[in-house]
Formats: sequence, structure tokens, C-alpha cells
Amino acid sequence: MNMVHLSRFPVQFGRRLYSAPASGAIPAAKKKYVPTSGTYPQGFKVSGTVVGVKPSNTTKPDLAFITSDRPCAAAAVFTKNKFQAAPVTFSRNLLQLRKNAGLQGVLINSGCANAVTGKGGLEDAEAMAGAADKSLGANKATIVMSTGVIGQRLPIKKILDNVPAAFERLGGSHDHWMSCATAICTTDTFPKLISKSFGLPSSPSTEYRIAGMTKGAGMIHPNMATLLGVIATDAPISSTVLPSLLKNAVNKSFNSITIDGDTSTNDTVALLANGAAGGAEITSESSEDYRAFQAVLSDFSTDLAKLVVRDGEGATKFVTIRVEESSSEEGARRIASTIAKSPLVKTALYGKDANWGRILCATGYSMITEPGAPENEVTEIIPEKTNVSFIPSDGSAELKLLVDGEPETVNEERAAQILEHEDLEILVRLGTGKEKATYWTCDYSHEYITINGDYRT
Amino acid sequence: MNMVHLSRFPVQFGRRLYSAPASGAIPAAKKKYVPTSGTYPQGFKVSGTVVGVKPSNTTKPDLAFITSDRPCAAAAVFTKNKFQAAPVTFSRNLLQLRKNAGLQGVLINSGCANAVTGKGGLEDAEAMAGAADKSLGANKATIVMSTGVIGQRLPIKKILDNVPAAFERLGGSHDHWMSCATAICTTDTFPKLISKSFGLPSSPSTEYRIAGMTKGAGMIHPNMATLLGVIATDAPISSTVLPSLLKNAVNKSFNSITIDGDTSTNDTVALLANGAAGGAEITSESSEDYRAFQAVLSDFSTDLAKLVVRDGEGATKFVTIRVEESSSEEGARRIASTIAKSPLVKTALYGKDANWGRILCATGYSMITEPGAPENEVTEIIPEKTNVSFIPSDGSAELKLLVDGEPETVNEERAAQILEHEDLEILVRLGTGKEKATYWTCDYSHEYITINGDYRT
Repeated sequence: MNMVHLSRFPVQFGRRLYSAPASGAIPAAKKKYVPTSGTYPQGFKVSGTVVGVKPSNTTKPDLAFITSDRPCAAAAVFTKNKFQAAPVTFSRNLLQLRKNAGLQGVLINSGCANAVTGKGGLEDAEAMAGAADKSLGANKATIVMSTGVIGQRLPIKKILDNVPAAFERLGGSHDHWMSCATAICTTDTFPKLISKSFGLPSSPSTEYRIAGMTKGAGMIHPNMATLLGVIATDAPISSTVLPSLLKNAVNKSFNSITIDGDTSTNDTVALLANGAAGGAEITSESSEDYRAFQAVLSDFSTDLAKLVVRDGEGATKFVTIRVEESSSEEGARRIASTIAKSPLVKTALYGKDANWGRILCATGYSMITEPGAPENEVTEIIPEKTNVSFIPSDGSAELKLLVDGEPETVNEERAAQILEHEDLEILVRLGTGKEKATYWTCDYSHEYITINGDYRT
Repeated sequence: MNMVHLSRFPVQFGRRLYSAPASGAIPAAKKKYVPTSGTYPQGFKVSGTVVGVKPSNTTKPDLAFITSDRPCAAAAVFTKNKFQAAPVTFSRNLLQLRKNAGLQGVLINSGCANAVTGKGGLEDAEAMAGAADKSLGANKATIVMSTGVIGQRLPIKKILDNVPAAFERLGGSHDHWMSCATAICTTDTFPKLISKSFGLPSSPSTEYRIAGMTKGAGMIHPNMATLLGVIATDAPISSTVLPSLLKNAVNKSFNSITIDGDTSTNDTVALLANGAAGGAEITSESSEDYRAFQAVLSDFSTDLAKLVVRDGEGATKFVTIRVEESSSEEGARRIASTIAKSPLVKTALYGKDANWGRILCATGYSMITEPGAPENEVTEIIPEKTNVSFIPSDGSAELKLLVDGEPETVNEERAAQILEHEDLEILVRLGTGKEKATYWTCDYSHEYITINGDYRT
């Protein structure tokens, strides 16, 4: 078997157009986020294969194949963008047809998004799934994903011709998973893969495992940011409850991160459960096992989603926005997301500037209606009850910036120390209720502009 | 009278922290937007005075005084931000108290926003208005505005001490208006002032005049972008219909521009009408004069608002987003505003990149609900009916990028030519109805990051 050993076969990570490290290696500061080993779920085999979807790519795996040796329950959440890519349409339809059961594979290409490609694009997505099914000896059992350039057709022959090779390379080792996680990346500077073991109340002696990979927001013209994620577990979970487990987990993880607020045409996160580890199947949303797995999956999804923010384009900061004491969860969520997306907040973070005025400003406009629409009542925000603090990542005491609507005299030296760290938490306490929400974001740097304003000359 | 002749008294325009022209003069490329003469409404006298609200400022007028020799009908629209600055609260209350009639002055300082300053800040706003009233021999007749640093108290004594000087300097010449328009600026690179004459159907022989000034999005830590605008006319308009005239005009002008999507705590646009030119008063929303003045005011406000975008922080492009053939006006507006705010679109424009994928992507996510909320039905967007084109600013033929959902083979040379111009129009035709909306925006450049990430060292 032609295993890809990353150590022997250096992949061009960190090779964004704007600042290519000469080595093509993973940036030193990011190495700590890349595991050197893992505990992977039983019954799953994966591979990454160099296809050359982009003709210029001759070294980076760009076809990822995730398979199970037995049928899985499978669920996926897709972008709500009205312009949905062909693989999104195809995979959504397939999961509906199969009622979330009987799936065995996920085939993913990077380098071309197969988006806005019309009827031909849909045929390409079907052909990819068909080739994967054939190699697995299955029927209508493979969902597909694509990420990369929009508006271009896939080099479909090249991909189809390589599916047998992708099948031949399948394996369950750490290197296999790493190669597979590498294959879904585009301009990410490091592959995003995590795995862990967990237990379930009903089978205390069984070790269950979960592994997942994701890719972040990166683009070289004319791509757009795409988020893809695949999570696999050997826990036994019924197809009837899998969709709700995934949806709950994604809402507070992948749906709570932002790089630039732009929602892609291809975003997809899929969850496969093959039950290979044995034990009682989770069939009811009211069972103890369901709640236990929900907690595991939610935490796991959050860890995975955070890696996307860590690798945000041009990002120098990893920022957690916590909004607490809100009179509504929706309000807390909207305020957190507005702060997380505000260009003024994001540039201030880049500038290491304790600019609570911008945080407050974003809070203040987060709940207002569009111009022209009637004014709405906002019960979540009462200026006199609003508190804003920085929570340092080194565990030291919080730095209060605004207390009950009154500005604090900020110790600038202390603020500067806190903002020197890569990680920061911004805590907004609204004082109007008990609901809360968390968002994760990064800063806007010159490199963000360079990457996305990339001249095509 | 101590008139400020700009020609003799060079003001430090163009002096943004990040790229100060050595001369402190208006950048050459912006000079065409600064008038050298004007036709100003009768009965209004204005001034700009150097107060030194920021101690470092010793040369730029920073106190603007707009007065009428007789009581005016007055209306204003204010920010919807929940954290409203003291001058916003004060002026809103005053206009309510006066029922939009009997106003005679607007006093504006730059350099300090008097925002998030508690009870003391409100007292400062009252004191400013009181000093202006006293100089005018009026009572409860002056509204106030502030723009600049947030969270700091005004140097109120300095301001109050200078109100008599501001009154002494009042005059109606072009230089007076230019000095006044200069006084409301912060890091704008040029003053924004326009004026024009118009007629009304009921008084065909009367020449009416309208003049207005505005300021744009600029900040030096820890300011936030503030939009202020004052429009004065000598047409006779009843206080009962003035608010609706202003609201209608602002919705399609000031409320249809974006620099970065951040809505400030201080945004205010005021309209004063003193009737000094004579003729029949406009008292009914169904009159021909009302409709005629609405058209004049809407166009005028649009011209004024566009100047703000022209001077957007770090902007190299002036971009009109037109969304047409929508099944709803609200939808058209939201799509236009989403494209206008998208960091991916704005960086592509900076990079002169004909990246229709990003325009389409923003269109596709503009109507979707927040994560966690149920999916909504979107009738405005049908991918197969969507068209995207660039309309060149030189009057040459449109460049079609997407036709009925199918990508065009784009002539890259032609696209590059079109994108070389400062001005560009992006036209999105939805093919689902007859409603439309227009937004104006600028690009995101490295300078935007530099300005707003401004290190405080």
C-alpha cells in the first residue's frame, strides 16, 4: 500500500500566496495544533491521494476518501447560501433518499468547488459518488464534497481515474488520517485533525472513539472560503437521532465561528457513526447515552471548529467572545456574532488596542433593524447595566473596561500585556437575564487584505 | 469679523495618521470634490472656530456653528445604536419638546464624541446648547452634535468660552460655509460641502437654495466612525412634514452607504428649513411642492452621502451596488447592503479582481437566517435567474459576468480595464420582480487596516 508518510513527503503547507515559507512546512507557531498520534475509530479507513485537481499541484494530496467497512448512520449540515454547490445538492438529496442510513463513504476533492457549474456540475458530483461506490462495492452509499475555485468544472476524468488509487491507499493509521486531513485543505497553513476516546453510560467497559477533520477559510483567486468537516465515530447511533445530534453540536461550534462573515456556497459538516465498537445503539433523544454523546460531540466539534479560527487568513489573534447575562439566547448570540464580525473590533485586536469603545459600539448596533425598517424594542441591552472585560489567557485577573455602563480608567500597561498574547477572551455581561452565547473569531491584519486582494497579475 | 480664508489659512486636511501628506493639503485626487464657490440659503450664517478640543489641534476649526436669523422647522435622524451619545439624547429630546419647530442653531464639535460619558456628558451637551442659545438670544433653540473620541468628557469650559467667538465669526459666504464644514471633520481628507438652487411648482419665480455638509468615517484611537450631516434650506416647510421628508431622503442616501458596516453611537443628520426665500409653505405630504422638494432633498442627500464613501478610510474605489428585478424592496436592499459590506467583495475590488464568485456568494447568504434559527423561504433569489454585470464608469458597454446563473467566459483584459477606474457599478439583476435598491461602498485596502489597527505606541 502506498502510504503517504508526511514526515518523508513534505507537503506544501504554510504556502499561502502572500507569505510562502521557503520550506513549505507547517509554520512553527502552528505545529502545536497538529497531532503526532491519535486514537481513531474502528472500522474506518481513510486516504489522501495526489490527483492534481489544480494542474499546478503535483505534491499535495487533494482527494480525500473516508470509508467505513460497514454501513453507517450519517448526517450532514449544509450551507444555507442560496447558491449551493453541486456536491451540496447531491449529498443532501442522497442523505434524504437513504434516510440517513446505509452510508459508507465520503469522497472530497480540494482545488475546485464545483459551484455554479449547472447541470454538468451535478453530473460530476454524481460521477464522483458513483466511482467511490463502485470501489466500495456499495450502491448510493457515498456523499461528496468539494472546495476550491468557483465557477469552474471539475477535471472529472482525472478524479474518477484516481478513485481506485484512493481506495488502494485506504488505511486506519495516524499517517492515513493525516494524509486524508491534508487532502481537504486548500490554503490552510496546517491540517486540522483531532481524535479522542470516550465512554457511554450504558457500556462502561467499552472504549468509543471519535475522529474529525476540517479545513479553514483560505482562498486563492477566485476561490471563496469554504468550511468542510467530517467526523467519524465507532459508537452505535441510530440514523433517526444522528441528525439532531449533529445539528445541536454544529450550532454551538462551527456555526459560532467567523473569519470574515462570508458564508460559502460549499460549507458542509458530516457525521458518520458505524457502531464498530459495539454496545447498545443510541436510539432515543431522551436516553442517557444520547445526552452523554451529545456532550462529547459538542465539545469535539468546538475543538475542531476552533482550529479553523486558529488558521484564519492572516490571523494573529484567537479571540473568544463571551456574551452573558442576556435576556435571550438569540440576543446573546447576535451580539457575540456582531462583535466577532466587526471590522473595527478586528482591526483593533490586530493593533493590540484595548478599544472597548468599538466592542460597545458593535454591541449597541447588533440588535437594530435594517435601515428603513421600523425600530424594534431591544430588551437585551441596557447601557447602564453593560459590563465589558478582557479575560487574559494566562489565568490572571480580568481587566475591567466598562462597569455598569461607566468607563473604567484602564491600566494601559496591563492591557498591553494582555493583548500581547495570541489568545484573548472578551467578556460582555449584559445584566438583563441568564442566557449566554460564545463566538470565536480572529483579527483582521494586513495579510488578510493581501491574501484577499491578491492581484491576479 | 475674523473670517477663516482657507486659501490663506491652510488646514491640515489629508493628515490621517497613516499617510500624512507633507503639505497637510487636500489630496490632489480629491480636490475635484471640494467646491470653490456655492449658492447658500438665505437667512443662514455659519462659522468654524479653532477651539482645540484635542489639545494637539491648534490650527483646524473644530467648533461648527450653523444658525438661522429666524426660527426654523428642524428635523433629525439619529443612530439606532443602543449606546447613544449624550448629544444624540439631548437633541432628540429637544426636537420632541419643540415639536420640530422654533429651532435656530446647530452647534457641533469634533475631537470628542461625548459618548458613554454618563450624566455629566448630558450636562455638557445641555451647556453647549445653552451657550449657543444665549449668543443667539434664543431659548431651547439649538441642537448639538459631537464626533471624536469615545468615553472621554468634553473640555467643556474651552468649548463654552469659545461660543461667543463662534457667534462673532458667523457669516454667509462660501468661505464661512467651507470653514464650518471643515470644523466638523475629524480624519476626513477633505471637507464635504455642497449647495444648489431649485424651484418649487407653486412659486415658479422664486429661487430656493439648499446647502449641506457632512463628515465621514475616520478614526484615531479610540474614536469610532461617526457620520454627521447638516442640511439647510431657505424653502418654507412646515415642521409637521419636515421629519418625513428627511426620513425618506436619508433612507436612500445616508442609510444606503457603508464603509465597514459599523454603526456609530453619534450618527446624526439634521435638516433645517427657515423659509427665508418666501413663497407658500409646504404643509401637506400630498402637495406637489412636497413631492418636488422630496425629489430635490433625496438627490441632494445622495450626493452628500456619496462624498462620505469617496473619503472612506483607505478607500481606492467608489462602488455603486445596484440590485434590480427583486420580488421585494427589502430583499433588494438587504442583498445590496450585504454585497457592499462583504470583506471578500471589498478586498477583491481593492485587488482589481473581477471576482463575481464573491458577489454571488454574498448575494446567496444575504437573506439567510442566523445560525440556529429555522430556515426561511427566500423568494427574491433564484440562482437560475440571477445576472451579475460590471457597468464601467466610462460609459462603455456592460461586462456580463453571470447570465441566468451561468458563468460567462470573462474577457480578463476588458475586466482589468474597467477595474482600473476609481468608479465602478456592480449590477445584480435577480429576475424575480420589479423592486430595486442601491448601495454605495468602497474597498478594503491595506490602509484601512493600518488606520484602524493603529498601534498606540
